[in-house]
Amino acid sequence: MATTEWILTLSCPDRPGIVHAVAGVLADLDGNITESQQFGDPASGLFFMRVQVEAAADRAQLVSALEPVTQRFGMSWGLDVVGRRQRTLVLVSKAPHCLVDLLYRERYQDMPVDVVGVVGNHRDLEEIAEFYGKPFHHVPVTQDTKAQAEARLRELVAELDVELVVLARYMQILSDELCRDLSGQVINIHHSFLPSFKGARPYAQAYDRGVKLIGATSHYVTGDLDEGPIIEQDVERVDHSRAVADLVALGEDVERRTLARAVRWHAEHRVLLDDHRTVVFH
Amino acid sequence: MATTEWILTLSCPDRPGIVHAVAGVLADLDGNITESQQFGDPASGLFFMRVQVEAAADRAQLVSALEPVTQRFGMSWGLDVVGRRQRTLVLVSKAPHCLVDLLYRERYQDMPVDVVGVVGNHRDLEEIAEFYGKPFHHVPVTQDTKAQAEARLRELVAELDVELVVLARYMQILSDELCRDLSGQVINIHHSFLPSFKGARPYAQAYDRGVKLIGATSHYVTGDLDEGPIIEQDVERVDHSRAVADLVALGEDVERRTLARAVRWHAEHRVLLDDHRTVVFH
Amino acid sequence: MATTEWILTLSCPDRPGIVHAVAGVLADLDGNITESQQFGDPASGLFFMRVQVEAAADRAQLVSALEPVTQRFGMSWGLDVVGRRQRTLVLVSKAPHCLVDLLYRERYQDMPVDVVGVVGNHRDLEEIAEFYGKPFHHVPVTQDTKAQAEARLRELVAELDVELVVLARYMQILSDELCRDLSGQVINIHHSFLPSFKGARPYAQAYDRGVKLIGATSHYVTGDLDEGPIIEQDVERVDHSRAVADLVALGEDVERRTLARAVRWHAEHRVLLDDHRTVVFH
Amino acid sequence: MATTEWILTLSCPDRPGIVHAVAGVLADLDGNITESQQFGDPASGLFFMRVQVEAAADRAQLVSALEPVTQRFGMSWGLDVVGRRQRTLVLVSKAPHCLVDLLYRERYQDMPVDVVGVVGNHRDLEEIAEFYGKPFHHVPVTQDTKAQAEARLRELVAELDVELVVLARYMQILSDELCRDLSGQVINIHHSFLPSFKGARPYAQAYDRGVKLIGATSHYVTGDLDEGPIIEQDVERVDHSRAVADLVALGEDVERRTLARAVRWHAEHRVLLDDHRTVVFH
Repeated sequence: MATTEWILTLSCPDRPGIVHAVAGVLADLDGNITESQQFGDPASGLFFMRVQVEAAADRAQLVSALEPVTQRFGMSWGLDVVGRRQRTLVLVSKAPHCLVDLLYRERYQDMPVDVVGVVGNHRDLEEIAEFYGKPFHHVPVTQDTKAQAEARLRELVAELDVELVVLARYMQILSDELCRDLSGQVINIHHSFLPSFKGARPYAQAYDRGVKLIGATSHYVTGDLDEGPIIEQDVERVDHSRAVADLVALGEDVERRTLARAVRWHAEHRVLLDDHRTVVFH
Repeated sequence: MATTEWILTLSCPDRPGIVHAVAGVLADLDGNITESQQFGDPASGLFFMRVQVEAAADRAQLVSALEPVTQRFGMSWGLDVVGRRQRTLVLVSKAPHCLVDLLYRERYQDMPVDVVGVVGNHRDLEEIAEFYGKPFHHVPVTQDTKAQAEARLRELVAELDVELVVLARYMQILSDELCRDLSGQVINIHHSFLPSFKGARPYAQAYDRGVKLIGATSHYVTGDLDEGPIIEQDVERVDHSRAVADLVALGEDVERRTLARAVRWHAEHRVLLDDHRTVVFH
Repeated sequence: MATTEWILTLSCPDRPGIVHAVAGVLADLDGNITESQQFGDPASGLFFMRVQVEAAADRAQLVSALEPVTQRFGMSWGLDVVGRRQRTLVLVSKAPHCLVDLLYRERYQDMPVDVVGVVGNHRDLEEIAEFYGKPFHHVPVTQDTKAQAEARLRELVAELDVELVVLARYMQILSDELCRDLSGQVINIHHSFLPSFKGARPYAQAYDRGVKLIGATSHYVTGDLDEGPIIEQDVERVDHSRAVADLVALGEDVERRTLARAVRWHAEHRVLLDDHRTVVFH
Repeated sequence: MATTEWILTLSCPDRPGIVHAVAGVLADLDGNITESQQFGDPASGLFFMRVQVEAAADRAQLVSALEPVTQRFGMSWGLDVVGRRQRTLVLVSKAPHCLVDLLYRERYQDMPVDVVGVVGNHRDLEEIAEFYGKPFHHVPVTQDTKAQAEARLRELVAELDVELVVLARYMQILSDELCRDLSGQVINIHHSFLPSFKGARPYAQAYDRGVKLIGATSHYVTGDLDEGPIIEQDVERVDHSRAVADLVALGEDVERRTLARAVRWHAEHRVLLDDHRTVVFH
């Protein structure tokens, strides 16, 4: 049998013997570990592990070999092939920067996602989707059609066998129910400032306050929109001479690269959930 | 008369002719402009200017030559000699990182401050002050002695002819009245996060939320403690493996360098107040 | 006459009275200075100035008003309208990252360039040019056709009235003669490391040496390919786990943002040549 | 027996079963792994591992339990207690920035080093050493006394039982022989630029070239002074207005923080040698 490079990720309550048990299964299969990281979180009492292993074994063999261990330690776990592209749905409104960047990286930088569709509540970005050969779905959202639109999203997720939903400056709030149903599968990006600003026109507020840094945070979506577990953050330096429009443009740059890192790391199974935090193995 | 290099800073309502008028005064004195920056803020309608000029003129000559212009345009303005060290009082509690750094930079890096005294509400940092040959004033603060302590601070500011007060992790809140009286002369440093955290133990809150960046903000103190005009901000990257103690240590690094930049720029007259914002010419 | 916002840039040997003289011309025209920066370089003895000014004057009026001053001080100078898009020719080979980014920023981020054509020595990037509605010129280069190809470039520069040439990972070396003829109008981007690596496969060399930072430098092209005046540099952090291919991908990110900043600042007339250095007013 | 937290580091030719074997030893001792990282370098064919483990075992027990495994796989390995301070000798000349920073971090930030002495070829920094209670050894170096001085260094290393030598801007070159004898135990810091500059007065060269970033590299010392395996690098942004003296001051800031990180990571056994590269587990 040909050799495959697998990614195994797992978490469980921390106790002695986990690494030995997992490594034992992989050694029995003559697997060669190429990259491996572990982390025990003293705060949550949980243990996290990510292993890349080359083995002449198929999924069924691996699953059956791992089963006794995963059961013994009460593990949450996942298994994937290195480089497999996750089926991804990108949700957008009018701002193009994140969509352009994700599609560029899928095509030219081997980001392991397969964007199976782009959903817009406006039609502005349809031509970009088309240039990259992606089906565009126009799902308008008004106060009255919100429930309908969300039903259409659920349909698309099911029909297209979607594994990951990226909110690429999608200016609509998903219902708590949908967030829960897709927990750990939806990544959002939003601007961040020090200090943070609540309410409308945050860049204008940041300008009024004369901030010297503007930032972006990418996080998993939970019911509470901007408060899910953080995956990645970054900042850009600004000064007094920048108008609000400049802050917005610089904000777009930091948003697109922050989101791109979060999506890549998620797609490579480097991000594990640890209560309200993430463990990012990179 | 020997040549002196002067720093002239000014602000006034923006209208045509300001630069020409100021440059005319300097040209009449045969002054040679070595560095100059201007900025008109469309939001506040104010104009800001900082000029470094070599001239064979003393202060009285410069002031009298500038007077007609400053009056005509209703300018707030200041005049200083390049490299003159501002008489500075540093207020501390127990954390040494900012004090150690400021005294190091005064002695070894030509930061243009002359630390004329260190005030501590605890005695922990007395030996550091002494190593650098700085008088240490122990001014304890309790709920009951707060007014007394503040009176002592005012005395020291007056006696020592203090131009700048630096709160170098001074864990006491100055009264609104003192803040107003020293407006534009007190610089503070505090941690900053994205998002920001209110209340006690902010690093523990940041840890719980799994932030990927920790930051610091240096600002002028107004009545409202952490909300004065921002002078400088910076961040440091962290990951899931960092304990709260690590975050604190990294926070100290970013605090000390952010404060050092703010103090240096203030002492070089590079920071001008523009309503709730600062214009920083660097 | 309607008001126009002009950008005036100039440099000349440093001596007293320059700012006053220039500001006097602008004041006589009732011009309102919105942004202005000056810098006197003690090393080269040159003085540099960039002014943005709102005035109810056309180009001819400005030029004739400025003439006595520019002659008196022996100034090199330029005059442009804020926001005017510079006619730009982009030269590419096979790597898409810089081209995709520039065309995105022209269309969506108001970068003040008008890309009037894309030249490729390969056809790989033709479809990207077409998506953005840009004429693509295939100008293959072989050892034998190098002179011919360069003649074609000169024709295109002339026909299209090109003001700026951007080498967006164009893997060909321009002749010294062409570099001289287009001096100050050609911007290049290349990778940079600490330490730097000479010769072939620099990313592989950087990998072998275990560098922790990879960088990019954008510069004007002079005869000596990578040694022209530097406009902008930036870096990205890497670690031991990154393969050469990862370094290349991260290198693309830092190259595209470094080039984009250099092109924007050039197009906004923020970059002035100071011998082998640049003065960048931003 | 009380529990101790151990750090185990190892490297060996990569083959299946390493993690399982090591984890097996630790599991047999009822050890609890708190942090663990592995890396297989496809380029060198070597496997690297760092484990922190809590175990009720003393050094002899651990060594004897590990011996069969380390022999079977041909491992280079080390064992230390978390937080134990490495006996460190700091070599300096006249520049204080790195020494001040290291001693500050030892005393106030729990950097796990025990500076057992400071050696200066000049007496300038003696008072700093004394303030921190460190014995200062004046070992002058001239062309004629170079061999003598190095003999004195060897004596100090032996007498003081030194584990780590830090060249904190020590402006002397160690002999190839001493470098070999202390291989992997000597850390140096030097400035770095993009591009790099050979020869004297590198900051002046960097100024002439108008660099926009200045950097620092910390590395292990091998015979070839600045070419040992890199541990850490960092940069700081500069612009045209900075004089050479400013570049030097900013260079000091980036040097001291780059060196501090390298020393901390070394002292925590996070840095493993991989041919000419380092694996840094952090």
